[in-house]
Amino acid sequence: MSDVTVEKWGMFEASFQGPSTGNPFLEIAFDAIFKQKSREVRVPGFYDGDGIYKIRFMPDEEGEWRFITRSEQAELDGQTGQLTVGPATKNNHGPVKVRNQFHFGYADGSPYLPFGTTCYAWTHQPLAMQAQTLETLKQTRFNKIRMGVFPKDYPYNTNEPLYACFLSGPDGKEDFDQPNPLAFRHFETQVAALCEIGIEADIIIFHPYDRWGYADMSAEQDYRYVAYLAARLSAYRNVWWSLANEYDFLLNTKPLAQWDRYFHILEENDPYQHLRSIHNGDVRMNFDHRKPWVTHTCIQNWDVKRTQEWRDDYGKPVINDEPEYEGNIIQCWGNITAQELVHRYWITLTRGGYAGHGETYSHPEDLIWWAKGGKLRGEAWKRIGFLRDLLEEDANSGFEPLGSVHDWPWSRVSGARDGDVRLIYFGEHQPIVWSSGLPMDGDHYEVDIIDTWNMTVTPAKKVEAPVTHPTRHGDIVRGGKPDAAFGIELPGKPYLAVRVRPMKR
Amino acid sequence: MSDVTVEKWGMFEASFQGPSTGNPFLEIAFDAIFKQKSREVRVPGFYDGDGIYKIRFMPDEEGEWRFITRSEQAELDGQTGQLTVGPATKNNHGPVKVRNQFHFGYADGSPYLPFGTTCYAWTHQPLAMQAQTLETLKQTRFNKIRMGVFPKDYPYNTNEPLYACFLSGPDGKEDFDQPNPLAFRHFETQVAALCEIGIEADIIIFHPYDRWGYADMSAEQDYRYVAYLAARLSAYRNVWWSLANEYDFLLNTKPLAQWDRYFHILEENDPYQHLRSIHNGDVRMNFDHRKPWVTHTCIQNWDVKRTQEWRDDYGKPVINDEPEYEGNIIQCWGNITAQELVHRYWITLTRGGYAGHGETYSHPEDLIWWAKGGKLRGEAWKRIGFLRDLLEEDANSGFEPLGSVHDWPWSRVSGARDGDVRLIYFGEHQPIVWSSGLPMDGDHYEVDIIDTWNMTVTPAKKVEAPVTHPTRHGDIVRGGKPDAAFGIELPGKPYLAVRVRPMKR
Repeated sequence: MSDVTVEKWGMFEASFQGPSTGNPFLEIAFDAIFKQKSREVRVPGFYDGDGIYKIRFMPDEEGEWRFITRSEQAELDGQTGQLTVGPATKNNHGPVKVRNQFHFGYADGSPYLPFGTTCYAWTHQPLAMQAQTLETLKQTRFNKIRMGVFPKDYPYNTNEPLYACFLSGPDGKEDFDQPNPLAFRHFETQVAALCEIGIEADIIIFHPYDRWGYADMSAEQDYRYVAYLAARLSAYRNVWWSLANEYDFLLNTKPLAQWDRYFHILEENDPYQHLRSIHNGDVRMNFDHRKPWVTHTCIQNWDVKRTQEWRDDYGKPVINDEPEYEGNIIQCWGNITAQELVHRYWITLTRGGYAGHGETYSHPEDLIWWAKGGKLRGEAWKRIGFLRDLLEEDANSGFEPLGSVHDWPWSRVSGARDGDVRLIYFGEHQPIVWSSGLPMDGDHYEVDIIDTWNMTVTPAKKVEAPVTHPTRHGDIVRGGKPDAAFGIELPGKPYLAVRVRPMKR
Repeated sequence: MSDVTVEKWGMFEASFQGPSTGNPFLEIAFDAIFKQKSREVRVPGFYDGDGIYKIRFMPDEEGEWRFITRSEQAELDGQTGQLTVGPATKNNHGPVKVRNQFHFGYADGSPYLPFGTTCYAWTHQPLAMQAQTLETLKQTRFNKIRMGVFPKDYPYNTNEPLYACFLSGPDGKEDFDQPNPLAFRHFETQVAALCEIGIEADIIIFHPYDRWGYADMSAEQDYRYVAYLAARLSAYRNVWWSLANEYDFLLNTKPLAQWDRYFHILEENDPYQHLRSIHNGDVRMNFDHRKPWVTHTCIQNWDVKRTQEWRDDYGKPVINDEPEYEGNIIQCWGNITAQELVHRYWITLTRGGYAGHGETYSHPEDLIWWAKGGKLRGEAWKRIGFLRDLLEEDANSGFEPLGSVHDWPWSRVSGARDGDVRLIYFGEHQPIVWSSGLPMDGDHYEVDIIDTWNMTVTPAKKVEAPVTHPTRHGDIVRGGKPDAAFGIELPGKPYLAVRVRPMKR
């Protein structure tokens, strides 16, 4: 192989000619060992049709790398090559990893706060609509998208996909032992297009909304498919693995133990250990995210004041992918108001979690963002972008809850801090004066009132700290003292937050 | 005693002269047996000061009753009398009882749906303000009020009460072994005034907001005080017993076993078995309402979509006394918007429970309804009255949840039915078409859209029933059918409900 240059966290690809007879997907194993100094990285290869075999590699260190292929197939064994890895270019921050237990960050150290949206089947829509989806995403502040490998059969989702995911067998039916390279090439083109605009692809591997038989593949077929995805896609730095959407609606054909195996296959075949999680349907069916192969907690739950509970249960970052969607369709997971979704975002974020967006407005041609992409029609996405901008002004190690939900007032209102910066979100509460959660150590802070809906930031008026805890019999705070160095006045309306920051010097 | 006539569920009172020396409260036991045919009812008596001993009796059957007193004190023993009980007058429906497991009704069979408010210390305010409270209540549709026997020491509640609850002892301090008849006479005057305007008095026996020592009385003093209340007040038909407000904040001086004893004393000394419950502070500290001496479940919890959980846990009517209060004070249990409180009422009622109102708007002189009564300043009370009127149009055996919270869509929206009448509350959800929970059996129903905030009722347009359940892999509803005989159109905005009733013939 020729010597080539790629950037750090960029993709190196090498192709090899091999057999095109039989079923290479089933019959030919093929990988490569990439070496730098004493380090060796095993990179699985994959068959891309027409006798072409590929290895993709995402280097995470600059400098010289060499590789050698391995296979029982002679043409694919012992092939060597080398590459030179240069520095990452401007907008390449590397893959996202867990950081500080409950948060995320790019591999280059820059902060990453997930602000995701959902377009399950956007890569299966007509190409013009896919282009529109990418254009729309550029107008937003979303930096992650949930998207399925497979097309979707579901209310509002009845059109045929652009490509069958598998080639037809002799009986004219899709043969789940023969991936369709065209389908997967198109999918990864769109993963790359997302990477180009700074959006992480949260790739849903399995889902139950199926009429093609993908949800009914055998366990062995599933295992090969997961390994194939890992070999094809892991070298894209913006890949996240979401094992399933609503895995619990698939348990009749894919029992629980099988899900662990899918995770293990990714651990074995994704050399970069991209983020891995799995999304439940029924609120009682959260996956056991404590398992070590799950990197973060994904859930679907509208009851967002429970965010700390999920942090505590699993000890990992929490992303509530579906705190219900803004929209007006008949399905109740898809018909909350924009204001309610923004409210749930703020609650989630100021309780130390992250939330996901989706939009489900009824449309005469069923062009609904949550499944097909296209255009956004709602109001929440702008406020969610405002929230992201606001948080990124100050995010450092991650916003952590200001107190236990069992302590007053954090069971009722929400508050979080990242270092010296605090955010308190009042939501449906409208106190006209406030102090809990404000600093105890003097007055060297600036405080702003944030109107989360109107997206304004206004300096707050400071007042003497009131005594916030009730004085009562047996209460340890009897004869109560103020719980902060100062208080602030608030305008007495809902959906406000306050931000406290050290004064600039 | 002379023969007197009282109405059914009215009050008969007989007074007797006895010793006024020593401490009659501690030293003299005194009761009466009321007889009608073969029935005997034991009615405890009480000392009312100045050598006067009283027996109060609330007959629950018309006709002739006779009584004889019993005491080791000769003057109070063997006294007899008789009374004639006539029919209840127009607005006298008797005491409220549990009916149909999860609901309430008056003893005469007429429906009673609790729509309570809270004025903890209203009977301890200046008399003009107490008169104002009664006037205000008449303007509302509240039919229950939570009120403490003892005055309150708490933020916004620092004024001295009208009366000390106990007489002073030789040391000038209140002697908890000598109830002050003036204080209790005033309290019962106000209980009677409430009865006059159709309002149940939900009497709070203990609370932790204390500076007078009432929360620190000995167990024996507590027991005598509870028995004394039972003897004085049980004959008022509008009495409910609330053992405590926030009993869990009293556990340091009144351990859990003591609370059962208080209940037992009421069982033994309230011949009419008025409703008995107890109210928690911390949301993790619900009392064990399964205990047989607890007639219904009282709780404080903002998380109102859990209403069915509390029904299921205890199998008794649920009253959420404090789903937080409308207001703007710094304490977060007292600063939600009017709209949010109305929203929580609707959720609670359409999940088979009942809710309580309170109002906590900051006031320059601390005149706050929730503690002192006076004037209402908010907006929720009108909508709560509208909701009561609406429910009472149709209430019969009680509104029961339309489905399990584990079944779609009742985890997310709320719905209940009383016989053929159904109410579905959407809250933050805004579908533009709906069918779940509508009747399966044809089209002989009228459907109205209720704007819960603007208090309007508008006929809904019926449409063909949509398929509401998603069709998906493995779902038992695959190839889904409509779940109702028809659907309705909705205007796509929040805080709406629909009501379905059989068409009038």
